[in-house]
Amino acid sequence: MESKVSRRLTQATAPELCAHIYLPRLAREFAPGFRYLTDINAAHLVMLHGAGLVPTDVAATLARALLRIEQDGPDAVPLDPEREDAYFNYEAHLMAMAGADAGGRLHVARSRNDILATHDRLRARDTVLALLAALADTRDVALRQADAHADAVMPGYTHLQAAQPITYGYYLCGVAQALGRDIARLRQALDRLDACPLGAGALAGTAFPIDRAATARWLGFGTYAPNALDAVASRDFAWEILSAMAIATVTWGRVAQDLYVWATPEFGLIDFPDSVAGTSSIMPQKKNPVVLEYLKGKGGHMIGMLTASLAALKGSHFTHSGDGNRESMRGFWDATDEALRCASLLKLVLQTATPRRANMLDRARCDFSSATDLADMLVRDAGMSFREAHHVVGAVVREALDRHLPASEIDSGMVNRAAAAHTGRALDVDAEVVARCLDPVQGVAARQSAGGPAPALVRQQVADQLDELARDRQAIDALRVTVDASRAALRRAVERLQSLA
Amino acid sequence: MESKVSRRLTQATAPELCAHIYLPRLAREFAPGFRYLTDINAAHLVMLHGAGLVPTDVAATLARALLRIEQDGPDAVPLDPEREDAYFNYEAHLMAMAGADAGGRLHVARSRNDILATHDRLRARDTVLALLAALADTRDVALRQADAHADAVMPGYTHLQAAQPITYGYYLCGVAQALGRDIARLRQALDRLDACPLGAGALAGTAFPIDRAATARWLGFGTYAPNALDAVASRDFAWEILSAMAIATVTWGRVAQDLYVWATPEFGLIDFPDSVAGTSSIMPQKKNPVVLEYLKGKGGHMIGMLTASLAALKGSHFTHSGDGNRESMRGFWDATDEALRCASLLKLVLQTATPRRANMLDRARCDFSSATDLADMLVRDAGMSFREAHHVVGAVVREALDRHLPASEIDSGMVNRAAAAHTGRALDVDAEVVARCLDPVQGVAARQSAGGPAPALVRQQVADQLDELARDRQAIDALRVTVDASRAALRRAVERLQSLA
Amino acid sequence: MESKVSRRLTQATAPELCAHIYLPRLAREFAPGFRYLTDINAAHLVMLHGAGLVPTDVAATLARALLRIEQDGPDAVPLDPEREDAYFNYEAHLMAMAGADAGGRLHVARSRNDILATHDRLRARDTVLALLAALADTRDVALRQADAHADAVMPGYTHLQAAQPITYGYYLCGVAQALGRDIARLRQALDRLDACPLGAGALAGTAFPIDRAATARWLGFGTYAPNALDAVASRDFAWEILSAMAIATVTWGRVAQDLYVWATPEFGLIDFPDSVAGTSSIMPQKKNPVVLEYLKGKGGHMIGMLTASLAALKGSHFTHSGDGNRESMRGFWDATDEALRCASLLKLVLQTATPRRANMLDRARCDFSSATDLADMLVRDAGMSFREAHHVVGAVVREALDRHLPASEIDSGMVNRAAAAHTGRALDVDAEVVARCLDPVQGVAARQSAGGPAPALVRQQVADQLDELARDRQAIDALRVTVDASRAALRRAVERLQSLA
Amino acid sequence: MESKVSRRLTQATAPELCAHIYLPRLAREFAPGFRYLTDINAAHLVMLHGAGLVPTDVAATLARALLRIEQDGPDAVPLDPEREDAYFNYEAHLMAMAGADAGGRLHVARSRNDILATHDRLRARDTVLALLAALADTRDVALRQADAHADAVMPGYTHLQAAQPITYGYYLCGVAQALGRDIARLRQALDRLDACPLGAGALAGTAFPIDRAATARWLGFGTYAPNALDAVASRDFAWEILSAMAIATVTWGRVAQDLYVWATPEFGLIDFPDSVAGTSSIMPQKKNPVVLEYLKGKGGHMIGMLTASLAALKGSHFTHSGDGNRESMRGFWDATDEALRCASLLKLVLQTATPRRANMLDRARCDFSSATDLADMLVRDAGMSFREAHHVVGAVVREALDRHLPASEIDSGMVNRAAAAHTGRALDVDAEVVARCLDPVQGVAARQSAGGPAPALVRQQVADQLDELARDRQAIDALRVTVDASRAALRRAVERLQSLA
Repeated sequence: MESKVSRRLTQATAPELCAHIYLPRLAREFAPGFRYLTDINAAHLVMLHGAGLVPTDVAATLARALLRIEQDGPDAVPLDPEREDAYFNYEAHLMAMAGADAGGRLHVARSRNDILATHDRLRARDTVLALLAALADTRDVALRQADAHADAVMPGYTHLQAAQPITYGYYLCGVAQALGRDIARLRQALDRLDACPLGAGALAGTAFPIDRAATARWLGFGTYAPNALDAVASRDFAWEILSAMAIATVTWGRVAQDLYVWATPEFGLIDFPDSVAGTSSIMPQKKNPVVLEYLKGKGGHMIGMLTASLAALKGSHFTHSGDGNRESMRGFWDATDEALRCASLLKLVLQTATPRRANMLDRARCDFSSATDLADMLVRDAGMSFREAHHVVGAVVREALDRHLPASEIDSGMVNRAAAAHTGRALDVDAEVVARCLDPVQGVAARQSAGGPAPALVRQQVADQLDELARDRQAIDALRVTVDASRAALRRAVERLQSLA
Repeated sequence: MESKVSRRLTQATAPELCAHIYLPRLAREFAPGFRYLTDINAAHLVMLHGAGLVPTDVAATLARALLRIEQDGPDAVPLDPEREDAYFNYEAHLMAMAGADAGGRLHVARSRNDILATHDRLRARDTVLALLAALADTRDVALRQADAHADAVMPGYTHLQAAQPITYGYYLCGVAQALGRDIARLRQALDRLDACPLGAGALAGTAFPIDRAATARWLGFGTYAPNALDAVASRDFAWEILSAMAIATVTWGRVAQDLYVWATPEFGLIDFPDSVAGTSSIMPQKKNPVVLEYLKGKGGHMIGMLTASLAALKGSHFTHSGDGNRESMRGFWDATDEALRCASLLKLVLQTATPRRANMLDRARCDFSSATDLADMLVRDAGMSFREAHHVVGAVVREALDRHLPASEIDSGMVNRAAAAHTGRALDVDAEVVARCLDPVQGVAARQSAGGPAPALVRQQVADQLDELARDRQAIDALRVTVDASRAALRRAVERLQSLA
Repeated sequence: MESKVSRRLTQATAPELCAHIYLPRLAREFAPGFRYLTDINAAHLVMLHGAGLVPTDVAATLARALLRIEQDGPDAVPLDPEREDAYFNYEAHLMAMAGADAGGRLHVARSRNDILATHDRLRARDTVLALLAALADTRDVALRQADAHADAVMPGYTHLQAAQPITYGYYLCGVAQALGRDIARLRQALDRLDACPLGAGALAGTAFPIDRAATARWLGFGTYAPNALDAVASRDFAWEILSAMAIATVTWGRVAQDLYVWATPEFGLIDFPDSVAGTSSIMPQKKNPVVLEYLKGKGGHMIGMLTASLAALKGSHFTHSGDGNRESMRGFWDATDEALRCASLLKLVLQTATPRRANMLDRARCDFSSATDLADMLVRDAGMSFREAHHVVGAVVREALDRHLPASEIDSGMVNRAAAAHTGRALDVDAEVVARCLDPVQGVAARQSAGGPAPALVRQQVADQLDELARDRQAIDALRVTVDASRAALRRAVERLQSLA
Repeated sequence: MESKVSRRLTQATAPELCAHIYLPRLAREFAPGFRYLTDINAAHLVMLHGAGLVPTDVAATLARALLRIEQDGPDAVPLDPEREDAYFNYEAHLMAMAGADAGGRLHVARSRNDILATHDRLRARDTVLALLAALADTRDVALRQADAHADAVMPGYTHLQAAQPITYGYYLCGVAQALGRDIARLRQALDRLDACPLGAGALAGTAFPIDRAATARWLGFGTYAPNALDAVASRDFAWEILSAMAIATVTWGRVAQDLYVWATPEFGLIDFPDSVAGTSSIMPQKKNPVVLEYLKGKGGHMIGMLTASLAALKGSHFTHSGDGNRESMRGFWDATDEALRCASLLKLVLQTATPRRANMLDRARCDFSSATDLADMLVRDAGMSFREAHHVVGAVVREALDRHLPASEIDSGMVNRAAAAHTGRALDVDAEVVARCLDPVQGVAARQSAGGPAPALVRQQVADQLDELARDRQAIDALRVTVDASRAALRRAVERLQSLA
């Protein structure tokens, strides 16, 4: 078998192309793409035979060779960069196994362009399904932890300053809500992915009477891509997935950022077991939040991967080309691997982070996160406008700070004096009322507006989200089942073909 | 009215903050956000009054002031950077119009955080609806042009080299297909946007018995955001929209790239009217493709805007913060403006680009884009394997190139000789058969596999896409109607409140 | 004056081009570019007259018109988007002021392409010089604060966990070192900027015997760009500046991130005055680190601006084009404005941040940041290998944590017991030795290796850096003086020309 | 040897950390970093011994072990992800080879943090030196081709429309000029790189009396990093290199874009040999510009790698951390590999691209790129203002287009008539004068302004650039020699140590 496919080109490929382009690509892509190439070949073969475009004896020979190649695995295929890419190397091996004539008959009514487009969708589909399953697990953990800690009162922060008391479960519930959207986005991205390019050929379909609907079915797609040029030119399903992953990992990095700060001894709100920490080569006391830093950094990496894909695509033509379809996908698979890793690591983080409830409550009592409740009370009980009440409580806080008092030691005298000074009207709120306002436990329990942190509400949010998650999981499982069933059916069809010889 | 809102802070704001942060922000954001702030205030007021949280006389005073402020427009509001942001400046103006007491009563049970989050969603919703409408128009033009030029035979290119004959209508049909996905993505992004944050407060809801469902309804949302922390912390609806816009504009830039090359005298496939061209200050002969270069470049700009938002967000905490919610949205509105411009310019481009049919056909005849048809014929009529046929035709092309013959002058003798030389078997294909294979018009007409370029298929694709487009437009219009109706109802409710005084 | 420049184009410009491309560009660019266009016109005029390419009377008329236009300012120039860009609008105004004949004689031997390239360099040069001056001031503040706090002992952190004791001055010294590299990068970027494109024409120079060296001199450049195509095609000086700004602002954001955490009550290491804080609309106790969040977010924005420029450029041709030269520069000036703002805000931050020395020292005493010193002592005094000492001290820390002891209560008994347990050899270190090791003040003072935190070393580092800064400032000032002197000389030359009439 | 280094941590590392973080990192980084770790260990050892911090017998044992490890190569080191990273695995192996006691004595007065920082600089230095050498070769080829084709007249393009005639050599000269700046940027980036972090320890130096200047010298650095915190916290040398590579590859992609279009049969200006082309699996006629598409796409990839690094860094603390120093460097080495590949491929492209001189000249004659010369003539010979001449020639071009005449058939009658019509003044230019203006060969020869395309000027530009290149090469070679000499001296010093046992 000569390595050059074309008779129109009369020179050997320059060594630079092999060394710098073809070899690194084969090294990155051949093995992971092997099973998809095999499926594509199988589906095309079964379809061609069904459409009468390949005689039964040739089909049987090809079926036998394909099954054998699949069994031997990717490492049994000799790779030669002179043959350019994964497909040509696969084809050369097929011709070696099935004979040049039979092997040369499979590539009718198709092209590397539609094969590559189909490969990208098949592989991306598996990746997204795996990611969806992982995300469902991560959300599940978040929700179960949210339930367990629905009443763990802690300061809620804005601008990294204590804002209002919340609970750790409430926080996790919010994170789980965001995870729900990450899942929704990935699921909807599958709408765009679910169209089979095979049979689109180079860009213009074919005059052979192929059955694209059959090919699509064998490969587990809901339909075929309706315009053959668009089918080979477009990878926007991938950019959409990549965007969803970048958005998701940046959000996860924000959660990691919270825990990163909360886990310091200075904040003291969260504990992690030693098993998720790294050590220092020099500082014997160190327990470094390795996983959190990984998650923090990875959002940045994913932004870059998204940028790399879109920028590689940008300026290419709306058709098949090396920049548009190969260089743009350069980092995509690496990015999907990283997204999977991050989903797993986030689950680990949420599972192993333990709230230090006593510290949490203590901080919520001493910082001034209940100040708004005090102002709200002045609105409710003393008829102040909110802006006025805000001013009065602001002055109270100012005094407490000047006197180095924690929030828990603010008393009704301070409030009444500040009100009189600011509004010119006497005020006489009770000591008990002030104390109740300043108690974060009561404050949280009272925040019963829809979506609020009152523990009962949090538990209800968890229940609602678990329902949604169950539905998501059902849908994800159903997709997985469909894909697996198509694959099994295809395998059986090839085995039947093989036995026809 | 003092400009400082807080009594806890005791110093004037440093001039650097005003000059570098607050003033530029107000200059960018106050005017375009004004109508949304007004709507938010109106909806909150109507809800508060309905929930008994504001007495009728105060509500009437506030209603009157709001209607007056709306009527006067944003330019009537004095802006003071010492008051930090748009909301505080609006509130100060409201207090000036309605009196400090009434004006100070509207900000109960809410915060700038949920207001800002709601503003971002309302403004983004209008933008996306406008963009969807524009995209539908652009796709419409693409499809009507595709229909008109369904039979304009031209070379199809891959790698910017003639590949196989297609038609210009077929090309446009592929572009319209991609536009359909751009529309689908933006529509689905609205799923994430459609939840009202108002009432989430700073991050922890409120103890006042507000009715978040009512607020959501008045503002035209399907529901309210179910976790108040997530409601103020998250802008992923915006990153999803931005991703969809970046993906779309990069694709449009690819189309512009095609036309950029095709419109050169060297290619000579497309004509543009002078009205879309720019001139040169020095070269009198110039007709520069200004719009195409704008579209080409804009994809890059949008990639950068997406990167800017995600990178600004990255590393922030999962809560409200200036980096997470303000700096991350810094370029978002500029980006949506640019996306709208691009949709309009792409429509102009597709409308004004005229295929030069004679040149197109001539090029398709002379370049070698029909070579695959010749190989397919050898498979079909001569029983060769495709790989063998590929080799034979490759040798034929080689000979034609060496002899400086255009494709249209390849004859059966060349084919038969090459076949004999390469396969060792005699071949005797007819001159007429070879000529038919090399005729791009017949070649295109024969490509009747699903999704292919045969003119009849293209017209069918157009019809299918127009159906889909009609459904999309119906859905977009329905959303627009719902939003407008909510707004009108809200306006009426405020007017009713006003009249209660 | 008709608005269309070209007689080759026969249609009015489409309204979409005016609305979406030309008008927004004019709105963004005319006013800030006005003074540079004036300088360019002036330099070209003086050169043309000197080379005998424009007669004296015409030159005088043009000189008079230019001086008048400059005096009237940009607002006096009527802007018409039908005239496309800033240059054509300027030229039209010049022809209105000087008459069509004289006004039409200035645009000989040049093009908009070299004018735009020259404009970009002139404006960028001013921006970089301003940024360099601002950065020098910021570094100066960092160094003076470093000197003042050279002995303010605090925990040094890695992975946001206490690592080893340092001083606040030492930290600032490190920051100042990074600022020094930011300055160096921007200064070296001027090497690439310092070549005048004017006279390069559209891309191919001119046959008129112009004197490019003279033009370069009048505009304050060291030389002219040596290849005319490269001169109009390339903006890499701008990407280099933008890269330097992105790298710098990301670094500044890291400093902001440190202070963001250190300024929390939980860490309690840093105080900021109220003047740099923002307030809350709802939470009366809030003092929000507005400036720090701005700096944190801005690094992300600048990454995006850099991406936008490079991605817009990517895929363009190596020549003048709208995507290559206009869209790629779309966000550049906005980015330079933001970099200037950030430099000023960082200076404010460094100036106003006050170390809370008592808290700092207290934390350094109680956390375990001196553990390495203990291990080092075991190496030095007890002959252990470092790895062994690390293990022993790790066990000591473990015990202290289990017994809830702060580091300051570790005693020699604990050390001796751990050593015996781990090494099997008896150890008898003194209580006093252990206490000395655990004292962060002595620990810092002992760290006298080059570049270390001992206060005396820090003060020396400050002195060295101030020397370097003085040299930098001298160089920046010298550049500023050269540029201003060229500009003044050019103004005088135009005035002389004017008086020749 | 236990895998856990720390006695403070009491649990085994979670399998997720090993699988997702440590193992992939080791797989990517251990082998390529091995030689630098060895050098670092060697330099530290020699310094420690010189400073009396390690006794001679221990030093000899360690020297022997290091030499042995180096000889065995990276594959001989067992990698265990439980040991976290490359350094700990190396250390464990060293302790296995040299005994735990001796092996445990090398890690005094240093940390993984300064080791990693030093590793990054050493490896980056080698990479940059290799890249500089490759770039010098590429520029050399560009210049030699520019010389060979200094008089190959072709149309120069702006906006992808024929603008003015240039020569292919002139074009290459412009490209070489840009390559010169790519080299300059990388050389200056070495200024920031050239400071040794070793001895900075974790972030705070050490109390051991080490000699950082000696370490720096042994490792071939000009100096040591002057602030130990900055030394471990900062990688801006890397972002600067990455920026320079991104800027460079985007520029190279623009050159590829030019050749991509020029090499089409439609343009017909450039030929490539078959050896640099790819083929098609289906279209026998195809000769695909694989290398050009690689170069086009790679600019986008590099933009993304730059974004990834900066975005990963963004939001980290100014100190050592996993996100700041590891995740930010995640794609750096891959990016440097790609930059090297691109430099080699660009050289191949420039070397193998052959101008089709006859076609070039033919196109330059027939398109209207000489129109400006005609206008210039009207200025020079007929006393018109340039703007007037531009209008007249614009009308001439319009007429030629309407009559389907190529530029070469414009005659003096057309010019004279247009002048009369437009200016109202009679004009009588000679046929010969018009013909001379329209001859691109004469036009190019006349463009003798500095930096212009006249062949003699181009040859002079080449000569000037070759001088500069020679100086660059000398400097690059000198750096290489210095680095290699240090390395050799270090090896000898270790060998001497070994022999002291």
